[in-house]
Amino acid sequence: MRVGLLGFGRAGKAVATVLLQSEETDLCWVLRKSKTLKHRSVPEFLGIAHENQGLIFPKDEWTPEKLFDQYPVDVIIDFSSPEAIYYYGQEAAKREITIITAISNYPDETITYLKKLSQKTKVLHSPNITIGINFLMLTAKILKSIAPYTDVEIIEEHFKAKKGVSGTAIKISETLDLPIEDIKSVRAGGIVGKHEIIFGFPYQTIRLTHESIMREAFGDGVLFAAKSLADKKKGFYTMENLLLPYFNLS
Amino acid sequence: MRVGLLGFGRAGKAVATVLLQSEETDLCWVLRKSKTLKHRSVPEFLGIAHENQGLIFPKDEWTPEKLFDQYPVDVIIDFSSPEAIYYYGQEAAKREITIITAISNYPDETITYLKKLSQKTKVLHSPNITIGINFLMLTAKILKSIAPYTDVEIIEEHFKAKKGVSGTAIKISETLDLPIEDIKSVRAGGIVGKHEIIFGFPYQTIRLTHESIMREAFGDGVLFAAKSLADKKKGFYTMENLLLPYFNLS
Amino acid sequence: MRVGLLGFGRAGKAVATVLLQSEETDLCWVLRKSKTLKHRSVPEFLGIAHENQGLIFPKDEWTPEKLFDQYPVDVIIDFSSPEAIYYYGQEAAKREITIITAISNYPDETITYLKKLSQKTKVLHSPNITIGINFLMLTAKILKSIAPYTDVEIIEEHFKAKKGVSGTAIKISETLDLPIEDIKSVRAGGIVGKHEIIFGFPYQTIRLTHESIMREAFGDGVLFAAKSLADKKKGFYTMENLLLPYFNLS
Amino acid sequence: MRVGLLGFGRAGKAVATVLLQSEETDLCWVLRKSKTLKHRSVPEFLGIAHENQGLIFPKDEWTPEKLFDQYPVDVIIDFSSPEAIYYYGQEAAKREITIITAISNYPDETITYLKKLSQKTKVLHSPNITIGINFLMLTAKILKSIAPYTDVEIIEEHFKAKKGVSGTAIKISETLDLPIEDIKSVRAGGIVGKHEIIFGFPYQTIRLTHESIMREAFGDGVLFAAKSLADKKKGFYTMENLLLPYFNLS
Repeated sequence: MRVGLLGFGRAGKAVATVLLQSEETDLCWVLRKSKTLKHRSVPEFLGIAHENQGLIFPKDEWTPEKLFDQYPVDVIIDFSSPEAIYYYGQEAAKREITIITAISNYPDETITYLKKLSQKTKVLHSPNITIGINFLMLTAKILKSIAPYTDVEIIEEHFKAKKGVSGTAIKISETLDLPIEDIKSVRAGGIVGKHEIIFGFPYQTIRLTHESIMREAFGDGVLFAAKSLADKKKGFYTMENLLLPYFNLS
Repeated sequence: MRVGLLGFGRAGKAVATVLLQSEETDLCWVLRKSKTLKHRSVPEFLGIAHENQGLIFPKDEWTPEKLFDQYPVDVIIDFSSPEAIYYYGQEAAKREITIITAISNYPDETITYLKKLSQKTKVLHSPNITIGINFLMLTAKILKSIAPYTDVEIIEEHFKAKKGVSGTAIKISETLDLPIEDIKSVRAGGIVGKHEIIFGFPYQTIRLTHESIMREAFGDGVLFAAKSLADKKKGFYTMENLLLPYFNLS
Repeated sequence: MRVGLLGFGRAGKAVATVLLQSEETDLCWVLRKSKTLKHRSVPEFLGIAHENQGLIFPKDEWTPEKLFDQYPVDVIIDFSSPEAIYYYGQEAAKREITIITAISNYPDETITYLKKLSQKTKVLHSPNITIGINFLMLTAKILKSIAPYTDVEIIEEHFKAKKGVSGTAIKISETLDLPIEDIKSVRAGGIVGKHEIIFGFPYQTIRLTHESIMREAFGDGVLFAAKSLADKKKGFYTMENLLLPYFNLS
Repeated sequence: MRVGLLGFGRAGKAVATVLLQSEETDLCWVLRKSKTLKHRSVPEFLGIAHENQGLIFPKDEWTPEKLFDQYPVDVIIDFSSPEAIYYYGQEAAKREITIITAISNYPDETITYLKKLSQKTKVLHSPNITIGINFLMLTAKILKSIAPYTDVEIIEEHFKAKKGVSGTAIKISETLDLPIEDIKSVRAGGIVGKHEIIFGFPYQTIRLTHESIMREAFGDGVLFAAKSLADKKKGFYTMENLLLPYFNLS
């Protein structure tokens, strides 16, 4: 599977690391706004031995047409900015390149635009693209339907500098129809990220816990999404859509 | 729902407590081997205010026919002994009384016998009838199918005096095709019971944790089973069967 | 060690259970306001086989003089009410009976009164008399002095019905000079009680966690206090005072 | 405080990062066996903005005399190899440079050599130089002396590839006189490192937990050691020695 990556900030680098280490993907290029690292090899920059030479390009150098012609890909992973989709979206859709975007703060009209693109190609949008968190949310939803009388509480823990309540915790809270104000936010030292959903029964307690070790967790999710979409039809997807079939055990 | 309970050991008492406190069940009688507490009222004995007077009977006083005639029930809950089913099973099946049995050590031929009875009535058998543990096992099975490359570890913690590896942990281990020898058993002080399933991803960790607060947790499971079976057809059921429909979200 | 207990509510009963099971203490009597259970044997009531017959007396039947004459004790354990100390304090001090009181809401003037009594006998006052919580508070204080740059957070979890922030969490918070508003209070199902103090370092996290299994934890603390005070001089003590010598390792 | 660092493997780099970020230390040089990165600037290599230009030197280029003459330091931090001390030890001791060594597998005769050096200068040796783990061990020792009747269990969790039982867990186990075979070792995914000591009381549980976020935790410990040693006398020290005064609260 040939992959192109947009964005090379901290999350983008982490995703690139996982893609380079996977035998199922070829990272063909990374496109970024900044001109630093221009034309350097991604594996060399990240210190990963890899013969497939993904190169780092500044966005200004290319039109999407030229880029897709010269370095064709099957999947685009977008960890850049809310606007980027307007740069590459139409051309990617025309060529039926799968779009996986992890941008969290799209305005409503961009979501509409994504859905329009999904008439021509597969588009997955997930603001938190880890398997773990999406699995947890589905699981919690199921448990709440089994035992609606339980008390559900959410604790999230992050590094001291993190501002505001974790977006992931807010998403979990919304999924479970809980008041967002009830989320307990712990801020201490260098904790990478921990989310715990507590189900209090009268005589037992269930805890569903997700701990992030490193940002590279995004990479696992991207890989899972890319592989799962391979045999899917055109359309608009979320991580939830891709995980749901695994829950149908009967 | 009129309920009769067999067995009045520690687990039986716990279940009786939950049944008495539920508005959806009437605990009509408790049948036990021992003659102690003979003809005492269950709610009075357990210190629960309840106008419905479930009485404690010694088994020897009754044939199932006489008991079911005089004190008819819709559901029998069995927390007594592996042999008890031969005492009441046939008569209960004939009258289409639902049988819920939590006996953990039935010999194979008794399981066969249960299945024969299930041609005439609903029979549910679950050695660990808590919602929490059964939910955890299904959830863990799903996660393993989503991410088969993860390392899965099981830790169980119980009070110092508990002998051997927890039966529940062994069941979880079997469900996940893990070597039973790998279960980590902590024995310390008065810990009631804790089971933790750890899924190790490269960059994230998921923990599914169940903590028992009191034996009464069995009662929640019994209630759930009794209510779920109400609109089911004749047949043989497990807790897994009853939980599965909740997992089908799509 | 001959012991008398004041108060026979839930905590009092729990403490009585531990005292009866210890080989180091004789529970001589329980004094309570209510007349229920009058003159019943404590071990019999609690279902504990014990030849030493501690009896349950209503307070109105006795003056402290008569009680201490007829049933002399070395230690009084007070789990009753803030006023009780005025009933038995002076007579106990005169006879140099050790006073251990776990009352949490003494007004200031009663604390002053306790200190006056402590000129004549040993008086220990601790609103939370478990070993665990008191150990945790001392330990947390030490860690804060070693690493004052860490972020400290307190999470407490209790059963749904518990009103307000846990008094123990408030005490921990005050001990560590943290804002009480920052305590995270989880209320879910039947959780007996959990307190967790998190120390966030830049690259590591330390968690000090206390989980209550049952109210009987008070009994362990009372036993520890009674034994530790045996070889102490007259004076006013707290649990902290009794634990401190164990921290002096050098 | 002028500091020189021996060893620039993963732990060495982590320590260098913390030293460069601290305002209390100047990292003057890094000495390493390998000739890679020769004469590069440490802050530049680690991507940390810092005007003080610590340079990376290959060991072969220097005698300790020449190095200490040209780039004098107050403290040497050794994260290199068991033999390195014979290279720099005598010269460092002569100049009363404080030696902090984190080498875990010194043979007995090297320990003896370290103690001889400590007659002339301050020498600290700690195989696990994090504050957290050393704090946990002292705390656990204290709790065991307060409540010798508790059951103590140790769980350690690490990444899948880690071979054998964690050395830190073995050290904790020895400190508490527990059988090393009883340590529970979980190996799953990318867990950086977690150590949990569980104290089981009859009615309560205390958990002392240490979670490593990154190797940089060593740096915090080194900084603490360097600062604590500043006002100490010549002699041989361990992390325990430096932490103990904080435990003497009375």
